[in-house]
Amino acid sequence: MTATLVLLRHGQSTANADDVFTGWTDVPITALGRRQAHDAGRLLAAAHLLPDVAHTSLLRRTITSTDIVLDTLDRHWIPVTRSWRLNERHYGALTGRSKPEVGSRTDPATYRAWRRSWATAPPPAPPGAFPPWNDDRYAALPPDAWPLTESLADVHARLLPYWIDSIGTDLRAGRTTLVVAHGNSLRALVAHLDNLSPSAVEALDIPTGRPLLYDLDESTLRPLAPGSYLGAR
Amino acid sequence: MTATLVLLRHGQSTANADDVFTGWTDVPITALGRRQAHDAGRLLAAAHLLPDVAHTSLLRRTITSTDIVLDTLDRHWIPVTRSWRLNERHYGALTGRSKPEVGSRTDPATYRAWRRSWATAPPPAPPGAFPPWNDDRYAALPPDAWPLTESLADVHARLLPYWIDSIGTDLRAGRTTLVVAHGNSLRALVAHLDNLSPSAVEALDIPTGRPLLYDLDESTLRPLAPGSYLGAR
Repeated sequence: MTATLVLLRHGQSTANADDVFTGWTDVPITALGRRQAHDAGRLLAAAHLLPDVAHTSLLRRTITSTDIVLDTLDRHWIPVTRSWRLNERHYGALTGRSKPEVGSRTDPATYRAWRRSWATAPPPAPPGAFPPWNDDRYAALPPDAWPLTESLADVHARLLPYWIDSIGTDLRAGRTTLVVAHGNSLRALVAHLDNLSPSAVEALDIPTGRPLLYDLDESTLRPLAPGSYLGAR
Repeated sequence: MTATLVLLRHGQSTANADDVFTGWTDVPITALGRRQAHDAGRLLAAAHLLPDVAHTSLLRRTITSTDIVLDTLDRHWIPVTRSWRLNERHYGALTGRSKPEVGSRTDPATYRAWRRSWATAPPPAPPGAFPPWNDDRYAALPPDAWPLTESLADVHARLLPYWIDSIGTDLRAGRTTLVVAHGNSLRALVAHLDNLSPSAVEALDIPTGRPLLYDLDESTLRPLAPGSYLGAR
């Protein structure tokens, strides 16, 4: 049997528009981001891809995007589950800084490794800075699970248990499953699904608001074919 | 210990504005309804009432209202659970009909009993009419659980298992719980909480968009005092 998985990066956020490192900062989506989410919903409807369940991160840009996609699809009533394990990569001390500004102060190989590599993490943030310790949404996380920075490999490691236990349970039960997440949490997931090499991961970019469809073997949860984007670019 | 429950009727819907019997018809909220939901979120924030979990019906007017309330409160990331058991009362053959038109063709005592009484149900709808049989959101409901019409007592009977098992579990775990539902599903719940007589239920009306706060005993789930609305009328 085939399990249907749809991955979607949230619509454009204010931080995407401002070209800053966002990470765990909780920014809203822009008017363009809302249109992208509507368009994603229309593409899914046209392809008769009706999610039975959805998963989001704990960040507003995936939550609002999911609300819009599901409302557009007339699937606003399906169960939605949220987890910090789908959050964007934690950008450490780069969080909130302008990408061009950081780029101009950093040697190009280091800057590229921070942004694109599999194994390199940016410098850590001060403890309690991003997000602040008093952010209720992470109150159930033990402090030693709270990242201060993350490489893409770190994102993969914290995402994998959720992929196996939660998303995987839905897929194995035959549910069409929508996962709305972030540029880097989706890069980590796609790297896992497609068994990408570190250099292939460096070249991988997930556009905002374009549904990425995978047909998976329902027992192994391995792709039967490479993922494909819906709609013309 | 005290458990905190907040009840909220969705913001004004297009059917409220048009003065028609809505029931299980899935209508959106109006621009006024969106403002009411924003205002409800601001009232909850001002009262430091931050839900840990939320429950909605399967109908868009509670789902959209909840999205707006939680986004306004910066609690968009909390778990939200939806159930048909919180749906509006099923209005049977009256579904979709104009209230003034029905009122003008019906003797006043019958019309009042259909709208306000505890035990009288409107005439049943044809099977598969409201909602249509092919509505996926009710696919898991066995056909004999699918109402064709409901009295308020019927609503109470189908709501009670969800109150005990799902909302009750959250309250007993000490979670501040937001329930966003409908004029009549909330009348049935308030009648249950406040042990209202049938005549008191007839007089009870729940306004759209105004948070109704209950402090409950955490073990018995009985109110420690009558519910109170937040904010001036």
